[in-house]
Amino acid sequence: MTAATVDFWFDFASTYSYPAMMRIGDAAERAGVAVRLRPFLLGPIFKAQGWTTSPFSIYPAKGANMWRDLERLCGDLGLPFRRPDPFPQNSLPAARIALAGLAEGWGEEFCHAAFRAQFAEGRDIADAAILADVLAQLGVDPQAALAAAQSDPVKARLRAETEQAQTLGIFGAPSFVTPDGELFWGNDRLDRALRWARDGR
Amino acid sequence: MTAATVDFWFDFASTYSYPAMMRIGDAAERAGVAVRLRPFLLGPIFKAQGWTTSPFSIYPAKGANMWRDLERLCGDLGLPFRRPDPFPQNSLPAARIALAGLAEGWGEEFCHAAFRAQFAEGRDIADAAILADVLAQLGVDPQAALAAAQSDPVKARLRAETEQAQTLGIFGAPSFVTPDGELFWGNDRLDRALRWARDGR
Repeated sequence: MTAATVDFWFDFASTYSYPAMMRIGDAAERAGVAVRLRPFLLGPIFKAQGWTTSPFSIYPAKGANMWRDLERLCGDLGLPFRRPDPFPQNSLPAARIALAGLAEGWGEEFCHAAFRAQFAEGRDIADAAILADVLAQLGVDPQAALAAAQSDPVKARLRAETEQAQTLGIFGAPSFVTPDGELFWGNDRLDRALRWARDGR
Repeated sequence: MTAATVDFWFDFASTYSYPAMMRIGDAAERAGVAVRLRPFLLGPIFKAQGWTTSPFSIYPAKGANMWRDLERLCGDLGLPFRRPDPFPQNSLPAARIALAGLAEGWGEEFCHAAFRAQFAEGRDIADAAILADVLAQLGVDPQAALAAAQSDPVKARLRAETEQAQTLGIFGAPSFVTPDGELFWGNDRLDRALRWARDGR
């Protein structure tokens, strides 16, 4: 029997993707569910909805509450938290690096490290020098990784992943999709999604 | 010592206000927290954000996921659910009736009954005949209640409540506010808000 699987769709600039990334490993293990990391870009999907930046920037009251909520949430989870500046950050370079790394076996570690860099350490993950440093700390050759991330196959892959996200009905991040196509939106639905993947309902 | 209190801000057209209304009584009792029902209108607040209807209607992917999510959620909670038609419903008459009822001792029962009528029974709570029927089933004189709801003090009260919601930073419903001004948005934050009200953090 194949193990139950959840696809975890996230954007590196997405605030609630941070706690989701930090806790999905343990939560999935407890549930007996395998996780596939699916980095994608929210930007094109937001643009199709008429938004040119994060809705948290467009709607100030919603944004103010999100920061406070995220701070409380990270406190409850024991996760360090620093509000990223700038926000939202350009997540394109990190997403490409993650796809390169997932094909080479260091993708999951990179995803954790990049979210920590941005949301725990206040670093700008659009900056190539910072990404190189994050990679070096993982023992990954930064030059080779950044070159792989700039390759045509990885660029095409990220475009295809983003298109697939849109086809699946994804409109925000994090999102969780089970093999039967059930879509769960938000860090608050992580555990419910794992249960659905395991039990089929 | 005064009992801990949470203000429960809701709009009768708000989908996630339905499960929140149905479970807040038991959840608050378990937490030892008192609840104040604060009906208000989201319409003017959405309008200030540039929306002329529900964001679930403006953004179809978000709307489709909300209906599916609400169906799953009600299933998990054992709550009957029927998708309201039309959606969103005009919540103005119900909000005024609720304010009149809260001043007269039958407001809480009416709030429950109106949410059930809309989300469990598929009735249109913008319809005066349906509202009259809901009131009659509670043993409340419909004509007197509808007249009270149309009185100038109740109309002014609802405008003031909606203005206060906006001042508190409320941008959606349900929202929960503790006496120290902490704002929690969404049915998913109900339990966290009660804990904050009880523990002050």
